[in-house]
Amino acid sequence: MSKQQIGVIGLAVMGKNLALNIESRGFSVSVFNRSAGKTEEFLTEAKGKNVVGTYSIEEFVQSLETPRKILLMVKAGGPTDATIEQLLPHLDKGDILIDGGNTLYTDTQRRNKELAESGIHFIGTGVSGGEEGALKGPSIMPGGQKEAFDLVQPILEAISAKVNGDPCCTYIGPDGAGHYVKMVHNGIEYGDMQLISEAYFLLKNVLGLTADELHEVFAEWNKGELDSYLIEITADIFTKKDEETGKPMVDVILDTAGQKGTGKWTSKSALDLGVPLPIITESVFARFISAMKEERQKASKILSGPSAKSYEGNKEELIEAVRKALYMSKICSYAQGFAQMRAASEEYNWDLKYGDIAMIFRGGCIIRAAFLQKIKDAYDKDSQLANLLLDDYFKEIVEGYQGALRQILTVAIENGVPVPCFSSALAYYDSYRTETLPANLLQAQRDYFGAHTYQRVDKEGVFHTEWMEK
Amino acid sequence: MSKQQIGVIGLAVMGKNLALNIESRGFSVSVFNRSAGKTEEFLTEAKGKNVVGTYSIEEFVQSLETPRKILLMVKAGGPTDATIEQLLPHLDKGDILIDGGNTLYTDTQRRNKELAESGIHFIGTGVSGGEEGALKGPSIMPGGQKEAFDLVQPILEAISAKVNGDPCCTYIGPDGAGHYVKMVHNGIEYGDMQLISEAYFLLKNVLGLTADELHEVFAEWNKGELDSYLIEITADIFTKKDEETGKPMVDVILDTAGQKGTGKWTSKSALDLGVPLPIITESVFARFISAMKEERQKASKILSGPSAKSYEGNKEELIEAVRKALYMSKICSYAQGFAQMRAASEEYNWDLKYGDIAMIFRGGCIIRAAFLQKIKDAYDKDSQLANLLLDDYFKEIVEGYQGALRQILTVAIENGVPVPCFSSALAYYDSYRTETLPANLLQAQRDYFGAHTYQRVDKEGVFHTEWMEK
Repeated sequence: MSKQQIGVIGLAVMGKNLALNIESRGFSVSVFNRSAGKTEEFLTEAKGKNVVGTYSIEEFVQSLETPRKILLMVKAGGPTDATIEQLLPHLDKGDILIDGGNTLYTDTQRRNKELAESGIHFIGTGVSGGEEGALKGPSIMPGGQKEAFDLVQPILEAISAKVNGDPCCTYIGPDGAGHYVKMVHNGIEYGDMQLISEAYFLLKNVLGLTADELHEVFAEWNKGELDSYLIEITADIFTKKDEETGKPMVDVILDTAGQKGTGKWTSKSALDLGVPLPIITESVFARFISAMKEERQKASKILSGPSAKSYEGNKEELIEAVRKALYMSKICSYAQGFAQMRAASEEYNWDLKYGDIAMIFRGGCIIRAAFLQKIKDAYDKDSQLANLLLDDYFKEIVEGYQGALRQILTVAIENGVPVPCFSSALAYYDSYRTETLPANLLQAQRDYFGAHTYQRVDKEGVFHTEWMEK
Repeated sequence: MSKQQIGVIGLAVMGKNLALNIESRGFSVSVFNRSAGKTEEFLTEAKGKNVVGTYSIEEFVQSLETPRKILLMVKAGGPTDATIEQLLPHLDKGDILIDGGNTLYTDTQRRNKELAESGIHFIGTGVSGGEEGALKGPSIMPGGQKEAFDLVQPILEAISAKVNGDPCCTYIGPDGAGHYVKMVHNGIEYGDMQLISEAYFLLKNVLGLTADELHEVFAEWNKGELDSYLIEITADIFTKKDEETGKPMVDVILDTAGQKGTGKWTSKSALDLGVPLPIITESVFARFISAMKEERQKASKILSGPSAKSYEGNKEELIEAVRKALYMSKICSYAQGFAQMRAASEEYNWDLKYGDIAMIFRGGCIIRAAFLQKIKDAYDKDSQLANLLLDDYFKEIVEGYQGALRQILTVAIENGVPVPCFSSALAYYDSYRTETLPANLLQAQRDYFGAHTYQRVDKEGVFHTEWMEK
């Protein structure tokens, strides 16, 4: 019996769809699932396709050509470790495990190191695009041994999304680099979604736009600088009516956001690296506050806001200001996310290629957007750019759009409309471009109560003052 | 030879001062330090005092009455573990180790559990107040076995700060509770310091106040609701002149804030617990941005802000608005910090007493402030208060002061003055009191691209929509 080119373990929706995607590109596939029922179901679904079902780990491993290529699509954490443990006795040096789950990068770093001791290659890869992406073409972010990536590159590129014929898959870097970049991608996704929600909230609460009008606004925005998957689906969402009530679907959905934790991982890593990541972090906190529905209901009856005023300015102008504020804030958020990747790259010696990363975000994944080309262009001009805001294109946009962001913030503040991420974006912009911040006072306080010392503006060195002597 | 009542290991400044403090309250003390030189130095300094120096771990342990009480004042992390390792063979069941370092609460939880298996009690205690507090009376936050606390209570209370005769020391809860509360205390301290810095920045940049005028403003503020140690030392700082240049000291200090990590621990714990902690987290990020001095210098020459305008309103009124904004934002920050403690108490079964915690913050520590009595009063009225903003006193303040916060934010935004924590405070207030947030759109997006499902406003259950069918 001839051997299969790649094996997939775990036939939940993501694993199943990736297996079908791989087979559809002309590769032969073995599959294994802990419960045999899922394997049988899958074989029925994949009847006539170049797929072999196996019913033990040993049979699965033996069905693969060497060096073996095994894609793990099991639950992140303990189940992944358990599966690796079961596989290990049957593997040979040079075999390649590929973890396509939503794994924390530190786990990938650990596994890559441990398995390398047995001569097994371990690739941790981000896979973005949800169920549909897995089946038709996701964005793929593989990290691990470069020589192992070279062997699986044809398969990963084949199954990935394509933009103008370019695969949305590139080698990210050693050990946990792929899962790290996927994590930051998800953090950026949190920020994008919250910014869009704040734009929606302003248009709805200050201008009173209906769902139909909101559809028009977002559909229009999707034709310009904001052209992106998330703006597109937002425009779409406003057209959907609830069958039961006839109301716009968005109005019958409860305002409590769920999450799976990757946004919070991104914030925690930024805190550890010493990188300011306020927009994404505020978006994580905004989800937390949204989930406190009962408490907010009570609080809304106790705590008052400013009295409602009808907006007296020009409606179209305000809509355009919100659009500009959204684009500027989005740029600030990506500037933070890419600065975080840069800090991680230095910390872990990953040598990340920021432009290439922007390119593979252009297709397949949730944050796909036309403006990612501008990020690629910026890093093509300067591969070590400290911050996207310093690139000519982005500088011109944010300088030109800051007035709009200041305007809509003032409107939101006067009307009591919470816009934590818009607020945070401007505070970041104004902090980043301010030569002298008030941290001199903060350092004076630290030196006063804790003798923590300070530096001076006029000479090198470390100084301490006896503050209490007059 | 008679035995000593308590032993102190580690004679760096905090350990030395605590040993002197303990002795001054009438307790006999043994000391040990890894390098004998420090021990000798200390004995010279403590000549005539009831202090015994020891030069081996064995001699140190043998010098103490049983059950032994040993205060560890060594570096947090590895050195603490190493010291415990050395002590362990010489200890008996029932002996009590007290870790007074700035230890991460998860380490304290681990050590408490491990040592309990050998019958050794382990108390992790927060000690706040810096060098001076250690010597004269710090705020003390002990966590661990209650029966062990009872045995060291007389010593800890004796050395703690007193407010109206009450010791600033109370049993916090099991295992890591004491170090957790100390961590949140430090996070709150970060928030307070950043808020004060933003107030200073506004007064300086918008109104052009001189150091002398700033002294007057803060000294005046310290007589009212803001009465606190940090406002007091801020007023003080503005009076200090640099001897070399004759300039105000604050103007020769470089605006790059340092940190020791406890602020970031607080934010990371909030992220893990699902508690919104935006103000403290923005203050951590503000320190990060302040530290990027060179990058900001470059950016300040590239990125423009709004053109400077002179403030045309009434100066005294704006100063008063800044004061109100500062008090309101401080209240929001404490509301977040105490909500975080509540979530941690539930997560770890600590049964924290929030009112008692507010009481021991009133003296000795950096965040000591008159308004902590109001927090105590709030929890006396309702020990399970969900959020401080819902208490009558705080509700009245924030409702009355929100107009001032909105006003100064508008001024800051128009003038390009970054105020990340003031901004975040208002966004939190407006989010928390908003019954319906825009997370309905966010949930629609998540359901659209990831089939993550949603809840409805009009009935129980979990729902999914096929968004792409028209």
